[in-house]
Amino acid sequence: MELLQATLESITEANKEMMEKAKEKVDSLCKPLGSLGKLEKIAIQLAGITEKLELDVSNKAVIALAADHGVYEENVSNNPQFVTVMQAIGFAKGFTGVCAIARAAGAKVVSVDVGIKEDLPESSGVINKKVRYGTANMAKGPAMSREEAIRAIEAGIEVANEQVKQGVNVLATGEMGICNTTASSAVLAALFKYDPAEVTGMGAGVDSLQHKIDVIRRAIEINKPDPEDPIDVLAKVGGLELGGMAGVVLGAAANRVPVVIDGFISTVSALIAYKLEPKVKDYIIPSHLSEEPGAKIASELLGVEPMLNMNMRLGEGSGAALAFPILDAACSMINTMTTLEQSGEYMQKVMADQIV
Amino acid sequence: MELLQATLESITEANKEMMEKAKEKVDSLCKPLGSLGKLEKIAIQLAGITEKLELDVSNKAVIALAADHGVYEENVSNNPQFVTVMQAIGFAKGFTGVCAIARAAGAKVVSVDVGIKEDLPESSGVINKKVRYGTANMAKGPAMSREEAIRAIEAGIEVANEQVKQGVNVLATGEMGICNTTASSAVLAALFKYDPAEVTGMGAGVDSLQHKIDVIRRAIEINKPDPEDPIDVLAKVGGLELGGMAGVVLGAAANRVPVVIDGFISTVSALIAYKLEPKVKDYIIPSHLSEEPGAKIASELLGVEPMLNMNMRLGEGSGAALAFPILDAACSMINTMTTLEQSGEYMQKVMADQIV
Repeated sequence: MELLQATLESITEANKEMMEKAKEKVDSLCKPLGSLGKLEKIAIQLAGITEKLELDVSNKAVIALAADHGVYEENVSNNPQFVTVMQAIGFAKGFTGVCAIARAAGAKVVSVDVGIKEDLPESSGVINKKVRYGTANMAKGPAMSREEAIRAIEAGIEVANEQVKQGVNVLATGEMGICNTTASSAVLAALFKYDPAEVTGMGAGVDSLQHKIDVIRRAIEINKPDPEDPIDVLAKVGGLELGGMAGVVLGAAANRVPVVIDGFISTVSALIAYKLEPKVKDYIIPSHLSEEPGAKIASELLGVEPMLNMNMRLGEGSGAALAFPILDAACSMINTMTTLEQSGEYMQKVMADQIV
Repeated sequence: MELLQATLESITEANKEMMEKAKEKVDSLCKPLGSLGKLEKIAIQLAGITEKLELDVSNKAVIALAADHGVYEENVSNNPQFVTVMQAIGFAKGFTGVCAIARAAGAKVVSVDVGIKEDLPESSGVINKKVRYGTANMAKGPAMSREEAIRAIEAGIEVANEQVKQGVNVLATGEMGICNTTASSAVLAALFKYDPAEVTGMGAGVDSLQHKIDVIRRAIEINKPDPEDPIDVLAKVGGLELGGMAGVVLGAAANRVPVVIDGFISTVSALIAYKLEPKVKDYIIPSHLSEEPGAKIASELLGVEPMLNMNMRLGEGSGAALAFPILDAACSMINTMTTLEQSGEYMQKVMADQIV
């Protein structure tokens, strides 16, 4: 609780003065005003976050947090539960989708066990931040205790702190956890009082969508999470990796480092962080719009507009990793484009053939 | 005409058999079927284009073609006409928006004069493929002759051929030409019988949108371009750089090289190529949805769905360059992800602690 409290207290808004300066610089470049759209907004946001005009996001990491879900026994996923541990190992070894995409973007993937059912050997390469061996079945009682929910968030903060200490200057949130779209839909419904039917989709595959909705409805009825208390919601109907991802967002903001969020699960986790401290909003950069129906709602609640429309629904942080190069482009724009004035002067010299 | 004819005749469809093999490989990877959406489609398309399963798009070039427009005298842009030559020089020197974005993506920008009003010294670094010194005013007569339209297309084919010969394995189309949204809206309206009001927007800035629409309407009325003859449309109400970009698309297809198209002007140019030879469709990869209102219509006519939504309206090929890393990610996916089977076997070894 101490780490969470200290982290929340250390989060400040992005530097508005630096954002003004960045906007001036962007507006002086050799292009029509505003013509690079969101690329300009990202550059200005990064300047506000880092308090610098010379931008650098060259050291990138996707934090992929994995955990299991007790609600698996309610048959809300048609994937075998061992996929959680398999993919967590795959993250560490560079096997999976997010790894392939991160590799192309020059980013690393950090695999974190925040609540996998099995113990993993050190040789797995997965960082051990296990809070408990999977959640309990939320359809029968709380997924975890309030203390465990806080520890899950703190696990994410710790990983963010460690990565920033190692020189990482942009983070992304990713995850693996069979049944975690069930938990995400439940958190979204509980936190913002949606009917579960409005925010629940097929996830990575389920035999009956109606059954999945019913299970979520039951979990909320039984546990009565308090919408005004995001930690209560996380504890009762959430997941350990959702807590971890909320922690990564908080940790990023506390370190003045931008954090790219992925699709549905990642955005819901960012909403937990946002409910704990609205200032985190300044540090969040969206990526893609997931195919999951709750994704659009979650993005709108957070006030972000995904940039990529790839019909992706893998999770893992794959969409966030795919957005990393957009940040590179935004940095390149502000760092390397010439001003309208410089371009005009140079043209005159060329046309006078004074340059060879 | 010979080069155009020979190029058109040498274009074949993408290799469907190789696409089947690529789909099999993608479906075997450690992820839910289809969960990487358009990334999977791109990988399969690239396999069909290149006839290889091991994909490589590491040698990237944006072909930025510049030309002037006689219709400038009708006051359809509030930008000074010298911006065309200024930005063409900026492309060659790495100054501009597309250069900054291409730099971040590891791509080069090739600046081509296909019809700038001024003569450029060799020191400018701009490749000289000038067909004529800007088009004539299409509001008073044809923008250029049929022969000139063909030569503009052939200029693009030549540049594509030269770049592929130098080892480039993915192309993108970009442009610069004050008033070229006017020409693009005119081509789109003429080629697909739209009312100019439906496909005309503000471009890089115009004092009166209605006046711009009226000028386009007049150009079409006076010149009566034949919708069944794309070269006639290009000659009468088009632009030299539009012809050049159509040529790059044709040249890419003839060389079995993928070509990423940019926003409105680039997509309209691709439609000219498509009307000349529909098989080019197999070689085209979309990028972003431009803010220009005709962009959505042009994309739908071409049957492509832009992946990036950045509110960009710079042109130059900037959106295409921003999409290059998506192709890198698609290649990395098919080249480096493990199969579900390999991942499962590896996990079992790790859990038995047989791997150190």
